Amino acid sequence: MKNANGYESEIRKHTIALLVENRPGVLARIASLFSAKNYNIHSLSVGETLDPSVSRITIVTSGHPQIIEQIIKQLRRLIDVIKVVDLTASGDKFVDREMVLVKVNAKGDSRAEVMRISDIFRGKIVDVSSETFVIEITGDEGKIEAFIELLKPCGIREIVRTGKVAVVRGPKSLKLTQTPHH
Amino acid sequence: MKNANGYESEIRKHTIALLVENRPGVLARIASLFSAKNYNIHSLSVGETLDPSVSRITIVTSGHPQIIEQIIKQLRRLIDVIKVVDLTASGDKFVDREMVLVKVNAKGDSRAEVMRISDIFRGKIVDVSSETFVIEITGDEGKIEAFIELLKPCGIREIVRTGKVAVVRGPKSLKLTQTPHH
Repeated sequence: MKNANGYESEIRKHTIALLVENRPGVLARIASLFSAKNYNIHSLSVGETLDPSVSRITIVTSGHPQIIEQIIKQLRRLIDVIKVVDLTASGDKFVDREMVLVKVNAKGDSRAEVMRISDIFRGKIVDVSSETFVIEITGDEGKIEAFIELLKPCGIREIVRTGKVAVVRGPKSLKLTQTPHH
Repeated sequence: MKNANGYESEIRKHTIALLVENRPGVLARIASLFSAKNYNIHSLSVGETLDPSVSRITIVTSGHPQIIEQIIKQLRRLIDVIKVVDLTASGDKFVDREMVLVKVNAKGDSRAEVMRISDIFRGKIVDVSSETFVIEITGDEGKIEAFIELLKPCGIREIVRTGKVAVVRGPKSLKLTQTPHH
């Protein structure tokens, strides 16, 4: 969608992948850039890579494409940020998935029902008590939302989502082609 | 392990669960507390809860128990932080799991080998190209490290980890019993 000036004006979710030096402070600097624009981070996950000195961050935010582009440029100028790619804007197809742990009531009759729902969604029951199950599922946003909706009538006690992680489809990869400019 | 003063002195990994108001700035403030102590965050994940105004954060860090305790106290005083629990220090048993996407070379002979390894670890192949697979696996740290080690000889092109998420075993849950004090 383009507005009168020919700019993209559509507000949508952007999935951003970053490679950063694994040092104290880098995450605070990154998060501050978003809050400075009053932009909310829907989900964020930080994990190790094969190189223990480098972490990979996946951020999902939403906003005007121009503001997101500004944030991306500012991210690239940050200390300890090695590489930043806006996967949504890149045009590349990517896989994005999330993991969720759900603690749900499972007493009496609802015990069998919860197990059926878990099976249908290929969930794994990772903890069992006399009153509750903890179920792990993975998938895209649609699958996870559908799973949660089906479990709601049983009584969800707790839910922990990892936030999305994403990789570009096919052989292309987010490499350390840029070296830190500091 | 206790030192001469009777304090716990062992440096180990701590898994911390937080409930926060989903507002810009909260993540930057949380991350800053860790970097102010020069403490590294091994992994962090932020995801939505059933209440769209509340997010749940899981942080894994390591350090002296006394310093971690100080950080926990400071976290509790932050604006928009609703609840903080150091799961490691709480003594409760908890399940902690992570999801990983691995893009691995899968050409010729190694294609069958990669599929075998994926099957053994109950991985899901979520993208296929003529040269590569993207495999999703979930599990605890040990399982994920073992999986990555086995795939290394095939050639890992990219790896994205969600960071750990954790819930206490059994019926107990991290509830919004505290209301924000602001």
